Amino acid sequence: MSALPPALASLISHLGKLPGIGPRSAERIGLHLVQTEASQVDAFSQALLTARQQVQPCEVCGGLTETQPCRICCDPSRDSGLLCVVEWPTDILSLERSGAFKGRFHVLGGKISPLNGVEPEDLRIQELEQRLEPDQVREVVIALPSDVEGDATSYYLARLLKGRGLLVSRIAQGLPAGAGLEFADGLTLSRALEGRRELF
Amino acid sequence: MSALPPALASLISHLGKLPGIGPRSAERIGLHLVQTEASQVDAFSQALLTARQQVQPCEVCGGLTETQPCRICCDPSRDSGLLCVVEWPTDILSLERSGAFKGRFHVLGGKISPLNGVEPEDLRIQELEQRLEPDQVREVVIALPSDVEGDATSYYLARLLKGRGLLVSRIAQGLPAGAGLEFADGLTLSRALEGRRELF
Repeated sequence: MSALPPALASLISHLGKLPGIGPRSAERIGLHLVQTEASQVDAFSQALLTARQQVQPCEVCGGLTETQPCRICCDPSRDSGLLCVVEWPTDILSLERSGAFKGRFHVLGGKISPLNGVEPEDLRIQELEQRLEPDQVREVVIALPSDVEGDATSYYLARLLKGRGLLVSRIAQGLPAGAGLEFADGLTLSRALEGRRELF
Repeated sequence: MSALPPALASLISHLGKLPGIGPRSAERIGLHLVQTEASQVDAFSQALLTARQQVQPCEVCGGLTETQPCRICCDPSRDSGLLCVVEWPTDILSLERSGAFKGRFHVLGGKISPLNGVEPEDLRIQELEQRLEPDQVREVVIALPSDVEGDATSYYLARLLKGRGLLVSRIAQGLPAGAGLEFADGLTLSRALEGRRELF
């Protein structure tokens, strides 16, 4: 017999499904919540519903937004001729945090991965092609992960887009900022060497 | 300008207040939730409200329960003459998991701590005294933490209860199960020595 009241056990099982929350953390958070002031728990529960209802994929780029199209797609100060292709909506947040990109985005929604049954037609590639002309895109910057599937998807896109007279680039692979050579694996170093650039 | 939609930012700020959830985890969980199926998020939000509304402190022992009094206080197979005093409702769960205690519980709701403004009258000590006669309590087992405030509170309770002709005991301090001497600090070892028991 467990000493946990059933409603608490149910809450803990929901918490345990969240990413990065193991059974011990789920229990700790659940116990904390049932002992928290009720008004705070109400507000949390409401925030959960509101966020899920209001945050939707942008119809244009596929990023997360509360308005259609999203703020980035609507922002006239951003270069619509420069389009950055990412795997997931969250990748947009990472790039925005860096402040280094002033164009617009396009979310693919995955990588080509035949082993996992993901074919090109499962990704938002057609939507990407449909944006190129109306937006007068000059350059597509591919910012997919540097793993095997990211490589394959990048080459697929590059072949597809080159035929349309566009510049297709991919973000560099090399040493992470602030890292010494001793922590880099061989593949990272070989790619950092390949991508070396002349100074001055 | 943050690229986070406001409803998502609000959800993330709620998540960041949970115990053991830092800003990065909160963001990761928030992003996961807005991309989860809406019906699952509804169920989670509902579980949160239900747990908070239905789980209340037991009127008798102070443990967490959905029924009054709680299952342990109602269970006739448990020895009501043996009362274990704990600091928090969650301590009951830990002891129940061990399966080693067959009496009933009493939650103090804290430890005496003049520096933090916690005096004996802020704890559920009066409620404890009121249970002793009706329940015909023979022994009070103090299971408070083995820190300075836990020690002080234990001595306070022992002095208070001894005068009533009760046996007052405290759970042992010593080596944790499975631990070698090399990992034990000096205070643990000195208490383990003090508490040594004759074999055979």
